[in-house]
Amino acid sequence: MEAKHVITIAREFGSGGREIGIKLAERLGIPFYDKELLRLASEQGGLNEEFMAANEEKAPVLSAASFGRRTLNAFYQPSLSDTIFLEQSKIIRRLAEQGPCVIVGRAADYVLRDMGSIDVLISASMPYKIARKHAVAPEKADYTDEQMEKYIKDIDKQRQKYYEHYTGRRWGMVGNYHLCIWADSVGSDGAVECIIKFMELQQQFEASQEK
Amino acid sequence: MEAKHVITIAREFGSGGREIGIKLAERLGIPFYDKELLRLASEQGGLNEEFMAANEEKAPVLSAASFGRRTLNAFYQPSLSDTIFLEQSKIIRRLAEQGPCVIVGRAADYVLRDMGSIDVLISASMPYKIARKHAVAPEKADYTDEQMEKYIKDIDKQRQKYYEHYTGRRWGMVGNYHLCIWADSVGSDGAVECIIKFMELQQQFEASQEK
Repeated sequence: MEAKHVITIAREFGSGGREIGIKLAERLGIPFYDKELLRLASEQGGLNEEFMAANEEKAPVLSAASFGRRTLNAFYQPSLSDTIFLEQSKIIRRLAEQGPCVIVGRAADYVLRDMGSIDVLISASMPYKIARKHAVAPEKADYTDEQMEKYIKDIDKQRQKYYEHYTGRRWGMVGNYHLCIWADSVGSDGAVECIIKFMELQQQFEASQEK
Repeated sequence: MEAKHVITIAREFGSGGREIGIKLAERLGIPFYDKELLRLASEQGGLNEEFMAANEEKAPVLSAASFGRRTLNAFYQPSLSDTIFLEQSKIIRRLAEQGPCVIVGRAADYVLRDMGSIDVLISASMPYKIARKHAVAPEKADYTDEQMEKYIKDIDKQRQKYYEHYTGRRWGMVGNYHLCIWADSVGSDGAVECIIKFMELQQQFEASQEK
């Protein structure tokens, strides 16, 4: 099928959302963007790539000093995290204007909220995520299940804070997405098929509404 | 296709979830349960049908008197709402044991949480819901859009309270469902197709895991 919209994929850590995004982009023959976005942003915004990678999907910590700057409007300066988010948002929007693609993470559903993207969320149970640990975090392969669970929860907490900080939306609420899939039910390949079917149905429905 | 699991459908008011459930049950050739459940419960539990209809998906109001009863454990009596919920839950579980069916509302996803149901949620934008007002609430056909919006929000607030009161879960969180569909994207017929595709993919994935 021919993709007509950008697809954004939000995902819980370990749910396979990134893998699903890559496979979906391959199937549709359109570009996939994930950390690549960071590289683009850093090249074009003149930001240090390493620092950006370290700050990826983490909300800024409001220190007393930064809070002081925020309350004194005349002295307001955006934090480095804010600058990165704004830079990334610009890049995401420019990429979306170029045509259909798959974008994973970076609150892209929010960034593209007025650009007709199809917003997908992938979630999964903790046992499913832990069972995927070799794919998700090969460097943590020696972690016990308990350690892995804590690691997964910590990363999801960071992502949630990042999302909520920059969007003002609550993470994981169905109203923010067009399609939410529980990966335990269908696996990564099944999720790709389900998204493609949804896109077909969306195009059919769109065409029927235009008549 | 042959359904192998019970399908529960949670829905925002006006999203078309009930219509989707009816069409899905027809397509799959399995029973559909909605208010019918109330009738069954009232017949078998000896409860007054009219009262049950009036209390449908509303959480009990904790009056000072009922709160007094609750704190004095020796005098604890379940409220009528609690009794209805418990009766409905029994009926839902008995129906689920009889074989695949579609159950709309009544926190059935929670009631059947250990019985392998496929839990679907249908949501939609307010303009989509208002545009469907003749199908959803024909007796309110003369309502202005503003009146209809308030009516829809009030009913959803009741349903949310009911769900959260009886399940301890937060309404609308993706983790409670296997599949969430935004009806604006695909319409009611598209949602039916999407659920059927998801069920096919789920059966394929289940079979592949058993090997």
